[in-house]
Amino acid sequence: MVQATLSPDLIARFCAITGPAHALTEAQDIAPYLVESRGLYHGTSPLVLRPGSVEEVSKILALATETHTAIVPQGGNTGHVGGSVPREGAMDAVLSLSRLNRIRDVDPVGNVIVADGGCVLADIQAAAENVGRLFPLSLGSEGSCQIGGNLSTNAGGTAVLSYGNMRHLCLGLEVVLPTGEVWNGLRRLKKDNTGYDLRDLFIGAEGTLGVITGAVLKLFPQPLGHEVAFAGLKSVKDALALFERASSRCGPALTGFELMPRLGVDFTTRHIPGVRDPLATRHDWYVLIDISTSDAADTAARMMEAVLAEGMEAGLIENAVIAASEEQRKALWHMRESMSPAQKPEGGSIKHDVSVPVSAIPDFMAKADAAVTAAIPGARICSFGHMGDGNIHYNISQPVGADRRAFLARWQEINHIVHGIVLAFGGSISAEHGIGQLKRDELAEIREPIEMDLMGRIKRAFDPAGIMNPGKVVRA
Amino acid sequence: MVQATLSPDLIARFCAITGPAHALTEAQDIAPYLVESRGLYHGTSPLVLRPGSVEEVSKILALATETHTAIVPQGGNTGHVGGSVPREGAMDAVLSLSRLNRIRDVDPVGNVIVADGGCVLADIQAAAENVGRLFPLSLGSEGSCQIGGNLSTNAGGTAVLSYGNMRHLCLGLEVVLPTGEVWNGLRRLKKDNTGYDLRDLFIGAEGTLGVITGAVLKLFPQPLGHEVAFAGLKSVKDALALFERASSRCGPALTGFELMPRLGVDFTTRHIPGVRDPLATRHDWYVLIDISTSDAADTAARMMEAVLAEGMEAGLIENAVIAASEEQRKALWHMRESMSPAQKPEGGSIKHDVSVPVSAIPDFMAKADAAVTAAIPGARICSFGHMGDGNIHYNISQPVGADRRAFLARWQEINHIVHGIVLAFGGSISAEHGIGQLKRDELAEIREPIEMDLMGRIKRAFDPAGIMNPGKVVRA
Repeated sequence: MVQATLSPDLIARFCAITGPAHALTEAQDIAPYLVESRGLYHGTSPLVLRPGSVEEVSKILALATETHTAIVPQGGNTGHVGGSVPREGAMDAVLSLSRLNRIRDVDPVGNVIVADGGCVLADIQAAAENVGRLFPLSLGSEGSCQIGGNLSTNAGGTAVLSYGNMRHLCLGLEVVLPTGEVWNGLRRLKKDNTGYDLRDLFIGAEGTLGVITGAVLKLFPQPLGHEVAFAGLKSVKDALALFERASSRCGPALTGFELMPRLGVDFTTRHIPGVRDPLATRHDWYVLIDISTSDAADTAARMMEAVLAEGMEAGLIENAVIAASEEQRKALWHMRESMSPAQKPEGGSIKHDVSVPVSAIPDFMAKADAAVTAAIPGARICSFGHMGDGNIHYNISQPVGADRRAFLARWQEINHIVHGIVLAFGGSISAEHGIGQLKRDELAEIREPIEMDLMGRIKRAFDPAGIMNPGKVVRA
Repeated sequence: MVQATLSPDLIARFCAITGPAHALTEAQDIAPYLVESRGLYHGTSPLVLRPGSVEEVSKILALATETHTAIVPQGGNTGHVGGSVPREGAMDAVLSLSRLNRIRDVDPVGNVIVADGGCVLADIQAAAENVGRLFPLSLGSEGSCQIGGNLSTNAGGTAVLSYGNMRHLCLGLEVVLPTGEVWNGLRRLKKDNTGYDLRDLFIGAEGTLGVITGAVLKLFPQPLGHEVAFAGLKSVKDALALFERASSRCGPALTGFELMPRLGVDFTTRHIPGVRDPLATRHDWYVLIDISTSDAADTAARMMEAVLAEGMEAGLIENAVIAASEEQRKALWHMRESMSPAQKPEGGSIKHDVSVPVSAIPDFMAKADAAVTAAIPGARICSFGHMGDGNIHYNISQPVGADRRAFLARWQEINHIVHGIVLAFGGSISAEHGIGQLKRDELAEIREPIEMDLMGRIKRAFDPAGIMNPGKVVRA
């Protein structure tokens, strides 16, 4: 068991490691580290440590294991499941990676970038672009999320369809273990079959097995051709049929296929400055199609025209527009990325980050819609997301005029309904956001005991003192 | 510790699980399960079990854990590192997966295939092709290796460059644990962030953590365009420069980039029936370039022509030929796949399966060649392989007229020299073949103690009785 309180002496020992300038002990300094952007979690902590080197991280964790002090690693704190904030009522110390923000190496020939765990994602994207390369991970919070957090949550985002999620974009890791020992796994190899896959165990472990302080990331050629289209359709079923055709035709050149409902387009055009509906006609559903090609620029254009022509001919697309400039391409993506924030002004929103096999999306949504509207008549379902990955952000805005608090009080009940349908389709209750505190108990309920048992064994083997981000992912 | 002998009573208890028809106890029946194709390992065993169901596998492992009986899971037994044969002088029972060879489901819409662990790779390729899909894993032994073994060794092969290795081709697993418990992780999801990555821990564990009895594998569209070219070059450096250009131009459409030395072309044309040099001119080095595209068939042809034209213009390619038919494409690949068997008639061969960062290949090979020929004057270096993955099969044939046994007696010494150079370039001593018995002690030597310690903790957490494939990968 970890400490229930931190004595002034112990706090002083931790502060001595970073130096007092980088250890926060005043409530007003600590406050920003305790809450998530979505506001679901409010933790407590007497201490925020901001180490400036891997060695300091190592000393902090060694002391934490020695003294049974709980440590919560925190990157950009942009998560949605309570994974990066301390527990409420506990005395967890926050370990902020923000000062470990050095890009260690950029190698455009070897197509890798080596970065500290605290590097902001946008800075890594920019460093890649500076040498004519692409680091494809892209998500709404890229201006503030950190790569160590992206790795710890196996982040997804908008480019997974072609490039894969964070796990696929990482070649090597440097991890400080709960004991303070440092695992140097900063390999730059595409193929390496030498023992158990420690890398992928730390990726997605949400900081419960160690602290990711450095990573080797893959770079890709900048695409020469890039096209974005926005198409109106009459059903999710048609969107799936269009995806299948586009996917077969374009292969890995299909770099995005995002689904949006009419309600989401209404919300974004109503609330997000600068967003407008690019089509003159109204449609029940929309898809954003993104195609990138590495050879001649016109390959992407030819592919996009073929996809749209075929979709229209097959009666799948009602109307469509191809962005004619980089500005227009950005505008289409901006609408898609505004789907989530645009829900806020509409009142309470009960959210789900789920995945099902891609081919099951229409049936899943039909069943979930029926069950949710039966439970909450007038509920406004704004389900959108990464259709090509089977990943739907199945969000539900409160009925017009309903009481926000009363609506949000039904979060668990509605989660239970939707997740039940997800599981019946062999789906996942967390496609990309992770488990954290939000889904920890639910995970233990839905999984077979042997799976939770294996996870518990790994947790205890790596973190015998139980100091690493306790209460997240697994109960242990 | 596991049992040093198996009593007749205990053997009878194991035989009762599969039924006597599927339990081999006679020396001549057991013999084929004890040796590897390359002949480096000759194990001993009193018992080969050939279960016909997951339930029987479960009962076998439960009894093995109860009675501390060592179990060696075996697929097609096509490995090269002593991972799938029992230890010499021990009493390990072999668990053959061969009867678990059912393809459970083929879903061309969801783009997955679900197969038993004992399915032969070629059967899975054929099942995919039957529904117009591609399962891209391809390697020399595909006619006899099994998918459970491919998964347990994280197999690579010739399509890794674009499609990734086995780890990237698998969505879900079913694993029988050493205790006999069954983990059903047969998920079909592209995105699933729900806890620790157990799947990737079993993949590549070489049967030391559990037995893979089933898997969900990814399918891909059959490419519409496919081109293969064979080019002669003057140096490995030029081959690297050509790879960089081809890779930038083609992106994921570059589905193969294989390097071959003149010596390898000589060996194959001399010893392998039907192989002929497709170029009239002689060159020091050759590359096989494979391009596949999912859209119109002429896209691949256009790309290949551009790659070759650009390579010639830049002075990188001395001469080249594009295969004009499927038969010619197969013939070029056949030459590449014959590089390894063609070394056999040339006498002893000391082999290395190594990887370095792609950009380091020319320097690595120059240093290794110098060191090897200094140690063994007249040694004939036949280094070839998956250049685009940084994976070189750095093989050395004995000097002409040398004594085979005396040459092979220097295996360890030469390994030590070559691996030292590999490690200096940040490379891997096992790019795709794994660790098994062959590299177990070497791995422990070259890795930091913390890494071996973490692997040991995982091994003990999953297999406390130490029954699963003991003596492989980790010392346990």
